[in-house]
Formats: sequence, structure tokens, C-alpha cells
Amino acid sequence: MKRTELFENICRKGSFLCVGLDTDLKKIPEHLLKEEDPIFAFNKAIIDATAPYTIAYKPNLAFYESAGAAGWISLEKTVKYLRENYPDQFIIADAKRGDIGNTAGLYARSFFEHLDVDALTVAPYMGEDSVTPFLGYDGKWVILLALTSNPGSQDFQMIEDKHGHRVFEDVIKKSSHWGSPVNMMYVVGATRGEMFKDIRAVAPRSFLLVPGVGAQGGSLEEVVKYGIIDECGLIVNSSRGIIYASKGDDFAEAAGREAAKLAAQMKELLTQHNII
Amino acid sequence: MKRTELFENICRKGSFLCVGLDTDLKKIPEHLLKEEDPIFAFNKAIIDATAPYTIAYKPNLAFYESAGAAGWISLEKTVKYLRENYPDQFIIADAKRGDIGNTAGLYARSFFEHLDVDALTVAPYMGEDSVTPFLGYDGKWVILLALTSNPGSQDFQMIEDKHGHRVFEDVIKKSSHWGSPVNMMYVVGATRGEMFKDIRAVAPRSFLLVPGVGAQGGSLEEVVKYGIIDECGLIVNSSRGIIYASKGDDFAEAAGREAAKLAAQMKELLTQHNII
Repeated sequence: MKRTELFENICRKGSFLCVGLDTDLKKIPEHLLKEEDPIFAFNKAIIDATAPYTIAYKPNLAFYESAGAAGWISLEKTVKYLRENYPDQFIIADAKRGDIGNTAGLYARSFFEHLDVDALTVAPYMGEDSVTPFLGYDGKWVILLALTSNPGSQDFQMIEDKHGHRVFEDVIKKSSHWGSPVNMMYVVGATRGEMFKDIRAVAPRSFLLVPGVGAQGGSLEEVVKYGIIDECGLIVNSSRGIIYASKGDDFAEAAGREAAKLAAQMKELLTQHNII
Repeated sequence: MKRTELFENICRKGSFLCVGLDTDLKKIPEHLLKEEDPIFAFNKAIIDATAPYTIAYKPNLAFYESAGAAGWISLEKTVKYLRENYPDQFIIADAKRGDIGNTAGLYARSFFEHLDVDALTVAPYMGEDSVTPFLGYDGKWVILLALTSNPGSQDFQMIEDKHGHRVFEDVIKKSSHWGSPVNMMYVVGATRGEMFKDIRAVAPRSFLLVPGVGAQGGSLEEVVKYGIIDECGLIVNSSRGIIYASKGDDFAEAAGREAAKLAAQMKELLTQHNII
């Protein structure tokens, strides 16, 4: 999906919400376990209930891989279901891959050709040749980890280099020469909204994928206050707060309700900032 | 596998060779393509031919994931074949995973319980809580990326912090408080042997997984000169140089020959250093 189309979808729906499909067999309602593919059955119901309020879905690969080959099948079915029924949704494989050039090329084949998602999260540690193989696909995106939302983000991402820049800033600055705001985004955690000021100083036009709103404690208002740009430039993800809103028979309905709430807040913020 | 057992295997075989199972459908001999599972057929033949000379195998996940669910099945069969027929081999899933705590826990479940490998390569960018969930398994290992062998390793791993330490040194030093030399190793590329001096200054007792010997240009003698310790402390990987030594019907035989050559060099070096 191209940047213009992504922005059009945001405007049309008044939402920049991404639902994280972190689907865990141990957390889905019990009555689904008798289905042939419980993971897919859960995802399908969640997608149907939340799609009116979202512009993106983000399956996290760990949740699928934890079931081995069977998990990959559930993932493939989920992506296919989205493609066939909700072609306006931006699909992000949250895989945080990163390997040397020829291997990165294989991951690109895996995610952009075989699975056919729109974007893949990539870890920057191995540098340029671990990232560029993903950039040669028209309408496909790399979403590079910059500043994550977990406690461990303090360990290496915040190291200050000898010029006074932090490693996450070095990652954004250096990688901006490899890709551009039409094929590269950054993961920036929402745990401290004011950090978005520093991010916008080095990535003024890029879309940012923002996890950490909700379960991890980030505030949507803060993220928007410091992070929004003319073309929105934000995709805010919520996983557990939406997909596990209820453990009962009404799980999908409850997920839809939570997604609608967030989308309503987003619409108001987009209006306040004269974007819609 | 525990460290003592790994070292015993190295001594008994006079080898610290790991064969990288970077099995690519586009590179395996054509006659295998008519097999029901060509990837597994290739791996099985390579393993049978090289096992006398190796102490470890390292399937790189990218090569399996590029075929989606089918690739995972080939991987599962390969690991099972090794476990059943060569229980003294150390199995490394080269996956370079790294995600927030609860997700890392799922990857641990995937690789250490479902797939049941001995070790997993992990990317350090997301810090402590992305690494520690892998450390709670008896006899299982994290192999943390420190200094990789690709050109992009210069981009972020070599950033000098304000105290004059490079990021890869910070990674080793900080992570040494999370694990210990009995459950954590480091990936250190072989492209410049003298770097092993700097690595040993911060990781005196750790095992190092060393890619980059062979196809990527590293020298075994240099690696051993600067990297070897009393308990060997090295696992040297070769992938393409061994598994694609011949494209003909004799591919397995040729792989065995290349592995035997490297193992013979290793035996000599282990003897020179009074380890065997």
C-alpha cells in the first residue's frame, strides 16, 4: 500500500488505529478451542468486529510461531482473509527480523511475496545490508525499531554516543539515507509522549508505528500532541486492550466496542489538528 | 546441552565446527526437487555426511520461513532427525529474535519447548526484558548478537559511546549481568580476527559463535589465535562453503570432504593450544 492510499484511508475512516493480533491460545475464549483452527476463528471474529474502526492489523509473529507450522497456517489464513475481505487494511507482520544481506533477502521473499503483507518490522542492530533488501518492493514498507516501549529500551537504545546523540537517534538518522518516508517507518513506543519531540526532530515526515498505548500505559493525547504531522504520520497500535476486552461469548463485540472508543478519540484529535 | 557436555564433545571429536543449514531450494541439486520434501532430503544427506566432523548444526530460520508453513515442517523434521540420530549435536536456531518480555516468552516456548533446539540467536536492541525470558531453561542457551560479520555491523555496533566504549562492548558487558557463561554465548563475526582480543577483554569465559569463516572471508587461524580459551570457547560456523561444495549428485560427499578439512585444521589448532 502506498503512502497516499494509507493517508486517504486514515482521513476517510477518521482513525489511525492498528489492532495487534497477538493471539494466544491460552487467552482466547474457551468455546473457540473446539474450532478446527481456534487462532484463525478468533482473528476472523476480531477483524469482523473491529474493521470499521481500524486502518491496520498487526499480527505478532511470536504468537503464531509458538505453535510451529500450524501457527504459520493460521497466520497465512488471517492475512488472506484480510486481503479478500478488507483490502483497505494495512497489514503489518510484527516480526522484528534482522539478518545479513542474503538472508534478509529471503525474509523479504517470505513476508512480501509468500505472505504478502504490506510492512515488516525490522531490528536495526545489523545495519544497512540487513535493511535494504526489504526496500526494493513497490508499495511495501520496512518499519524499523527505533525507540521501543519496553523497559529494556533503556539498555542500548538510549546509549549516548560521543557526539551527544542517542543510539535510537543514530538509527533514524542513518537509516533515513537507506529508505525514505514512502517506504520506511519507525517503531516509537508511547510510554513517554514528550520523546516524540526528539523523534520528530530527526524524522519530520515519517510515519511512526506506536505501540504501548493502553496495556503498556502510554497516552494517546500525548503521542498526538508531540507526534502528529500534516499527513497524520501516526499508526497507533493496541493489542491486549482490544482483543482481550472480554473472555466471554461477547469477546468480538467487546473488542469492537474498545476499538470504536479509541477510533472516536482519534477522530476528535484528527479534527482538532485540522487533518480531517 | 550443558557447557561441560559441549566441551566434552569438542574434545572427543577434536572439532568445534558448526554446519549452517542455510538450505535454499534455489541452490540445492536439481535431482532433489522431485523428493516429497526436498529441503529435508538435502539436510538429511548433509547431516549424515558431515556429522562425524561437527559438534553443532545451525539452521537459519529465514531459509525455512521463506517457504511459510511448509518450511517450518522441513525445519521440525530436521531438528527431530538430529535429535534421534545424532544426540551429541548442539542445535542452534539462528533466528535473531528479539521482542518485549511477554513476546520473548512466547519465542522461548516456540524454540525451546516446541522445536526443542539447544540455543537461539537473539538480537540485543530491545534490551534486558527481551533476553531474560530465554534464560530460564535448563541446558538451553541464548546466543546474543554482539559483533556481526556483515558490512552493516559498522553502522550501529561500532558506535562509540561517551565513555569510549563501542556499542557491541556495551552489549556484552551489560548482558553478562543477565546470564552467565553457562547459558549465554555471543555471536562474533570472523571478518577481523584481531577484534577477538577486544571481545575477550569483556567476555573472557564465554563461548563465541563465529560466522564468517569461509564464504565471508574470515580466517580460522586468526580467530583461534585471539579467541581461544581453556575450554575452547569457540563454535565456528561454515554454511555455504560446506553445504554447497558441489551442485552435483556428489553434493553430500563433497560437503563431508569440506567439513573434514575444516575439522582437521581445528584438531591441529586444539592440539597446538593443549586443549586436546
